[in-house]
Amino acid sequence: MDGSATRLDERRAALIARHSATLESAIRAVGTRESWSPFSDSPSTKIHGPDKPGAGKAAFEARLATTFDLGQPGVIGEVGEEVSPFTQKPLGIRYPQSDPDALLSAAVAALPDWRAADFELRIALCLEIAMRLYDRNFEMAHAVMHVAGQSYTQAFSGSGPNALDRGLEALAYAAKAMRDVAPSATYTRAFAGEPVALDKTYVLVPRGVGLVICCASFPTWNAYPAMFASLATGNPVIVKPHPIAILPIAIVVEVCREVLTEFGFDPNLVTLAVDTLAEPVAQRLVDDPRVQIVDFTGSPRYGGHLERTVTGKLLFTETAGVNTVVIESVAEVEPVARAVARASSLFSAQMCTSPQVVYIAPDLFDTMSAAIVGQIDAIADDPAQAAGIMGAIQGEVSLRVVEETRAAIRERSGVRVLREARPYAHPQFPDARTLTPLVVAVERGEHVDLYAEERFGPVLFLVKAEAGDAVMEAMRLARERGSISSYLYSTDEDFIDRATPLYEAAGANLTINLTGAMWINFAAAYSDYHVTGLNPAGNACLADLAFVASRFRIVQRRRPTG
Amino acid sequence: MDGSATRLDERRAALIARHSATLESAIRAVGTRESWSPFSDSPSTKIHGPDKPGAGKAAFEARLATTFDLGQPGVIGEVGEEVSPFTQKPLGIRYPQSDPDALLSAAVAALPDWRAADFELRIALCLEIAMRLYDRNFEMAHAVMHVAGQSYTQAFSGSGPNALDRGLEALAYAAKAMRDVAPSATYTRAFAGEPVALDKTYVLVPRGVGLVICCASFPTWNAYPAMFASLATGNPVIVKPHPIAILPIAIVVEVCREVLTEFGFDPNLVTLAVDTLAEPVAQRLVDDPRVQIVDFTGSPRYGGHLERTVTGKLLFTETAGVNTVVIESVAEVEPVARAVARASSLFSAQMCTSPQVVYIAPDLFDTMSAAIVGQIDAIADDPAQAAGIMGAIQGEVSLRVVEETRAAIRERSGVRVLREARPYAHPQFPDARTLTPLVVAVERGEHVDLYAEERFGPVLFLVKAEAGDAVMEAMRLARERGSISSYLYSTDEDFIDRATPLYEAAGANLTINLTGAMWINFAAAYSDYHVTGLNPAGNACLADLAFVASRFRIVQRRRPTG
Repeated sequence: MDGSATRLDERRAALIARHSATLESAIRAVGTRESWSPFSDSPSTKIHGPDKPGAGKAAFEARLATTFDLGQPGVIGEVGEEVSPFTQKPLGIRYPQSDPDALLSAAVAALPDWRAADFELRIALCLEIAMRLYDRNFEMAHAVMHVAGQSYTQAFSGSGPNALDRGLEALAYAAKAMRDVAPSATYTRAFAGEPVALDKTYVLVPRGVGLVICCASFPTWNAYPAMFASLATGNPVIVKPHPIAILPIAIVVEVCREVLTEFGFDPNLVTLAVDTLAEPVAQRLVDDPRVQIVDFTGSPRYGGHLERTVTGKLLFTETAGVNTVVIESVAEVEPVARAVARASSLFSAQMCTSPQVVYIAPDLFDTMSAAIVGQIDAIADDPAQAAGIMGAIQGEVSLRVVEETRAAIRERSGVRVLREARPYAHPQFPDARTLTPLVVAVERGEHVDLYAEERFGPVLFLVKAEAGDAVMEAMRLARERGSISSYLYSTDEDFIDRATPLYEAAGANLTINLTGAMWINFAAAYSDYHVTGLNPAGNACLADLAFVASRFRIVQRRRPTG
Repeated sequence: MDGSATRLDERRAALIARHSATLESAIRAVGTRESWSPFSDSPSTKIHGPDKPGAGKAAFEARLATTFDLGQPGVIGEVGEEVSPFTQKPLGIRYPQSDPDALLSAAVAALPDWRAADFELRIALCLEIAMRLYDRNFEMAHAVMHVAGQSYTQAFSGSGPNALDRGLEALAYAAKAMRDVAPSATYTRAFAGEPVALDKTYVLVPRGVGLVICCASFPTWNAYPAMFASLATGNPVIVKPHPIAILPIAIVVEVCREVLTEFGFDPNLVTLAVDTLAEPVAQRLVDDPRVQIVDFTGSPRYGGHLERTVTGKLLFTETAGVNTVVIESVAEVEPVARAVARASSLFSAQMCTSPQVVYIAPDLFDTMSAAIVGQIDAIADDPAQAAGIMGAIQGEVSLRVVEETRAAIRERSGVRVLREARPYAHPQFPDARTLTPLVVAVERGEHVDLYAEERFGPVLFLVKAEAGDAVMEAMRLARERGSISSYLYSTDEDFIDRATPLYEAAGANLTINLTGAMWINFAAAYSDYHVTGLNPAGNACLADLAFVASRFRIVQRRRPTG
């Protein structure tokens, strides 16, 4: 071995050692499911120092109107259609587009070295990628803001540390699953009185190329766990961002390629497959036999198509559903109203955990409805609060959701608009595409079709219903349309005890009686399981053993000892 | 709680305690992968006492020409087409046939209690089932003999303890995967300076009904792991045996229903779905939305159909492939020839691990070919040995495989028959359907089509080929046609080192230089992984975490502490 190879081995060993404590802590956290993170999700300069915010903003601005060159193979053109929801102007960033076949060939060519690498090294490299992304998180926050429309604080936390934590969580499970396989064994037993001794070797073998298809509104949150789960288990990854939200993922891929190269691996283990709305490339990648794992986050329409058509390869999906709140009884109206209003206002309800339907017991309906509307108004009428919570509307499509709902209501009787959707004036970005929630009051039993369909945008239905009926209907919707987060408020423990098995049976994760400072739709990595896989909201859980255990396979050999 | 409920709880607790040490030993064994079993796979009366063999035979004989009534719901008729390969006479056993819809409804009705049961209890019940099946193993041996054609000793061991061990192995993984999920946690962190404390509960929820489709030649070996994996994780199971090999599975279902009833559960958690060759019922069950898990063992044809069409549910398959032996060089000819001859003679090559193609280096070809033929002759010409090793030919289909091969050979030049297939005279059963292996010599490069197709029966191709080319072709066949067991003989460690990565890349489990008392195609539960999932021989591995981890899902609820 020459000197440079030795130095590389030493650097690799040092990398494993450097991240070892973090990995063990993550493994401990997914076991205890207590609160833990190696990151801070506050952008405070007390934590990060005075220079990082400005440097991050400058790094983002330096990207604008340039070509984001990743040095990938097989470039056949350039694309780039991103428009900032805060300025409504194009970012002007051009992304070289690689021929999908070139990316696949490069991934396959890179696979053998990656397969042969110690999985602890692969995990350490993913941890290094995570740490560097955390280091660049102010830049990432601006990137996410200006493609997705998230507020600065949400982009910083939710698309930064909270998302990276989901990635580390996947690494913890990958480590557990792979460490569970003994690398070798000696087997001795007698056959027909004759002693036999065999040395056995068990080799972890990846499946093939992993394809990660990202959503537009929260691109990093699902990308990290999927990418890290596939990479850790030895599979090269091609990341296909949504054509209107490429920049954050391009930064991620850039960091991956930089770290891989630095530690002597082929950067083509992680590549970016860009496309346009007019000429999507996802299906071509999905159909290629070299792709053996598909992770998809996005619309129920395309996710459902994949779920109905993909065979012979692993498919992990997270789509969306109809999230419900059932308010049976409350000790105090305002804290509950505030909790629901804040969750419905966060990122203008463009989240997979946003509530869409709030069932309220008849005796509470008028008071609670008025309080919820009042709490939404309190946010919407304070531009600084609105900017921090609601952010911007990512695309025209979410505006259309509101328009279509408004049109559907106009034709109906027995449906009342309690609060009109209207823009708020963003204090920093006068041209921001904003919209505060439309709030609609409905009698249960009528108009179920109006609120039973997922409406991905700032629309909230308040439904007057007996709580028992409400739980039944909510869980029917969960089973038929999917649900990622369900919420229940009741002061009656018997009612809660009767209701919880129904939520379990529908595979609906449930938050009970939560008010106060924590967002009720906040899902904590290492502690909260996200998506059950038991209803149409997706088949993958972030994160459990099932999310990683089948991404690698085991090949054995055995021979007589000695 | 009344007295009988208390007694039931006590009996259930005692059951968990009774099987606890066995479960922990199984968990330890799958970790170390050393040799272990709670069973003995020898039928010796020194182990089992003098009475069991006769009682088992009598129990089997008492079944003949009767109706095997399991007390299942929705009976719509009776079927039964089993013919003993040893007597070539019908067994005359009639099986009440239940309407598939009635079995599904009953399974769904039984699910909630099973879901609610402690998973340690579900595992203990499966262990109890295994122990009772072991207790009835002499009866089972006769049942397997007279539907599958296995010899008495193979039926006793391979379809008894060795199969039960695969079931316990699956239970060990199920325990590991479910214990990995914390049942509850307390989560505390500050949000915006406000301390938040949440109690979180994580509930394991089964997917739905598990369907287990069994093969005809080795019905119990794959049934136990699939049944136990689904049952342990909370899923009711419908077992669909092959119409010509129902009896062993009917006995299994009988024991399951007896144990479930005894411990206060609905027997319809395990039911038998019987059908006929003319009117198969599998697809109707596969297509039903209540079935959420399908375990299939059988032909590549139907297995491939399932792999190409089943979406939205879990599918585990084991089909078959073209198993190869590559003989590059040997220290001694005879031990290798004997090892290959025995593996090719065992159960007349009606096993998924039977070698089909033996590549022999040109300088060794004549000597090794003659030695292999000689060793097969030595078995075939000794009726007692032949009876113990080769058993009988299960069905006409395996006779046709030989006929078709013989016909294909007649039309070709450059292919020589080294040994004709011919019956041997079974010492106990003069009417037994027997056939000893056809051995064919072939030049590599020509006639690949002849031996590249799986031929499920006593046909062995000896192919003259340079070992390097042989490995390449063998692994191409593994990738294209599937392989469950591959074998390599070489005294050249450099050659072995160069070859092993090729086997790994093709997902081919490899046995190197094995001779002596152990059958080279013996796969030991807890130690040998069976099927890699990386080639067309199936997608499921017996057993790893992936075999169990996605059979259950996790549903959580959380609420403020206190």
